[in-house]
Amino acid sequence: MSYFSYLECSKCGKKYSIDEPHNLCECGGPLLVRYDLEKIKKNVDKNVFKTREKGLFRFRELLPIEDEKNIVTLGEGDTPVLKAKDLGERIGLKNLYIKDEGLNPTGTFKARGAAVGLSKAKELGIKTIAMPTAGNAGGAWSAYAAKAGIELVVAMPQDAPDLAKKEAFIYGSKTYLVKGLISDAGKIIAKGVKKYGWFDAATLKEPYRIEGKKTMGLEIAEYFNWEFPDAILYPTGGGVGIIGIWKAFQELKELGWIKDKVPKLIAVQSEGCNPIVKAFNENTEASEFCTNANTIAGGIRVPKALGDFIVLDAIRKSKGTAVEVKDSEIVESLDLLAKTEGLFICPEGATLVAAVNKLFKTGFLKSDEKVVLLNTGSGLKYPNLVEEKLPVIEIDADI
Amino acid sequence: MSYFSYLECSKCGKKYSIDEPHNLCECGGPLLVRYDLEKIKKNVDKNVFKTREKGLFRFRELLPIEDEKNIVTLGEGDTPVLKAKDLGERIGLKNLYIKDEGLNPTGTFKARGAAVGLSKAKELGIKTIAMPTAGNAGGAWSAYAAKAGIELVVAMPQDAPDLAKKEAFIYGSKTYLVKGLISDAGKIIAKGVKKYGWFDAATLKEPYRIEGKKTMGLEIAEYFNWEFPDAILYPTGGGVGIIGIWKAFQELKELGWIKDKVPKLIAVQSEGCNPIVKAFNENTEASEFCTNANTIAGGIRVPKALGDFIVLDAIRKSKGTAVEVKDSEIVESLDLLAKTEGLFICPEGATLVAAVNKLFKTGFLKSDEKVVLLNTGSGLKYPNLVEEKLPVIEIDADI
Repeated sequence: MSYFSYLECSKCGKKYSIDEPHNLCECGGPLLVRYDLEKIKKNVDKNVFKTREKGLFRFRELLPIEDEKNIVTLGEGDTPVLKAKDLGERIGLKNLYIKDEGLNPTGTFKARGAAVGLSKAKELGIKTIAMPTAGNAGGAWSAYAAKAGIELVVAMPQDAPDLAKKEAFIYGSKTYLVKGLISDAGKIIAKGVKKYGWFDAATLKEPYRIEGKKTMGLEIAEYFNWEFPDAILYPTGGGVGIIGIWKAFQELKELGWIKDKVPKLIAVQSEGCNPIVKAFNENTEASEFCTNANTIAGGIRVPKALGDFIVLDAIRKSKGTAVEVKDSEIVESLDLLAKTEGLFICPEGATLVAAVNKLFKTGFLKSDEKVVLLNTGSGLKYPNLVEEKLPVIEIDADI
Repeated sequence: MSYFSYLECSKCGKKYSIDEPHNLCECGGPLLVRYDLEKIKKNVDKNVFKTREKGLFRFRELLPIEDEKNIVTLGEGDTPVLKAKDLGERIGLKNLYIKDEGLNPTGTFKARGAAVGLSKAKELGIKTIAMPTAGNAGGAWSAYAAKAGIELVVAMPQDAPDLAKKEAFIYGSKTYLVKGLISDAGKIIAKGVKKYGWFDAATLKEPYRIEGKKTMGLEIAEYFNWEFPDAILYPTGGGVGIIGIWKAFQELKELGWIKDKVPKLIAVQSEGCNPIVKAFNENTEASEFCTNANTIAGGIRVPKALGDFIVLDAIRKSKGTAVEVKDSEIVESLDLLAKTEGLFICPEGATLVAAVNKLFKTGFLKSDEKVVLLNTGSGLKYPNLVEEKLPVIEIDADI
């Protein structure tokens, strides 16, 4: 089923076995899952994935779950790629697409990481998992932990989206609201992990959620008939999505399934929390901790990502870029996208609409390029961003 | 592409052509779409659907859209069927499944009706559509109307779910909040339709949304390898879902694609609004208007459904039944389902958990029967049903 062969440190290259739980490398670097790609090349036809039951586990050869019975699924993955004709025309792009991750369980792309992360945790016999979260990952991991029968401890900022709090609560996770940012929640969880021996599933401290997010890249490649689009824009907080997509594309190239040059990967952040944009512009290898991080797009309010150096490397090697947008542009974009494309999306995803507009205007993106906006979640999780003003009428009123 | 041949009155049998807009029959009966099933039988292999791009329009031969360019899609349909092992064990059912319609655009099954309804409206050149709604249909039709570039007028109860109001607002529909029930909203819309010549898309006054909902039945049959499960439970308000599923099964039998006896169709309502349950128990052909209708499951707070006689006929002919549950059971079921299956669903869907438990206890359902709960939407649209109580901690706290 899986061609998973070992874990490898993204910094020093040290290898780890696949049979026991691992977090970071001794050197502090995140571990990446490696597969026997030579064997997959020999044994697997890329057209087989389409013939299987829908959902991300149809890419099982490129995922780390060894026994099918450990799969924990709520129907995640295989989200639609929609042609955004009207929006594209307004901007000037003939081939603009939106991949809508809002149609995942719990309403965000976080379901992908949770599905693979919890499946592998079940396979490894892990009993309790702990994680800090901006909100949506906590919601997603709570759902999958409930399904898997694994205990989950979550810490999230007190001002996390209400719905993420409600999710963690109703799914039965042990949940704490922290008077601070995700970085503060991370410190609290790290202490708990040390004290109680919980498995730490913080972003990139756990090697498997990248694999779940990688399937976004596999789906995009398959959607374009195993060719690459020209550019992918991604709202970047912890950056695991962009790392996952980059990893998918590397694997596809090594497998010889795609020979094109990889798409330009474009990290989009908010002006109020822009460490990757800054590091990209200043040409540094890693980012600086962003003080006073503040944006309405809470999912990308990550002051310093553990995998920042991988994100920056992926952007540069793919000839991409990093762009920041204002919160006011996010709000305008939310409205524009709803009215032109019938999509009510999350504020993180809405950053992409403002960003793609800028990149077309500067000439970085050309009118006939195939451009994919990766919307990470549904607007249903952010009801506070819409203030409806509607007339109230009597039952015998005429309209 | 489509084998659509005519519209037929469900009461008197009168036929109508497919080339212009129609609402009800002269006799007041809802119109149903009829296909050239003989030709489909000759020309179409049922296994072809699986090979097509995912989404409900892969069943295009059995849908009324004639020209592909009129399709308005946001990626609806092909929702997962999940085995509810833990919940099944608690109840005593070995083969309990949940089809999760919450993964549709706008978070409910209403997206299916809207996708087909708006596509057909575009094909017929309709400029303005008007509809009353309990809330979620208004949200869904607003999204698809925005995508289609068709004007939509919506009237919904003032106490409709906040998110449905926000959806109608952000998608740009002309929306009115009525100090009453969906039946009152219906009267207001009917007056507007008469005055302005809008196309009336009220439940069953518009013949195409049934066809969208029918695809739930097609997907269920395909999921079970073109066999039928033993029973399907459905939260019943306007009843279009149950009518659509029943229609799908009739067409599959006429096509000879399935020879089994059809599943028992089970309508589930709330004690506070139970017209179908009452009519079923009293053995009447149609239901009585339910006065003082009241339940937390707003989507099934429909005092009198236009298609009640079709729903009752489907339940009886399929050897199904009708069950009512208490609001308190809905709340308990929501919690149970989240904690056992990792699903946070809508209150309408939660009625099914209480109902299936009752039907197993009375012996109506047997332990080895294949039973499908059709959850109509996501809990994300009902944040008020979860009151989270979570500890707030300082940034230097120990847990």
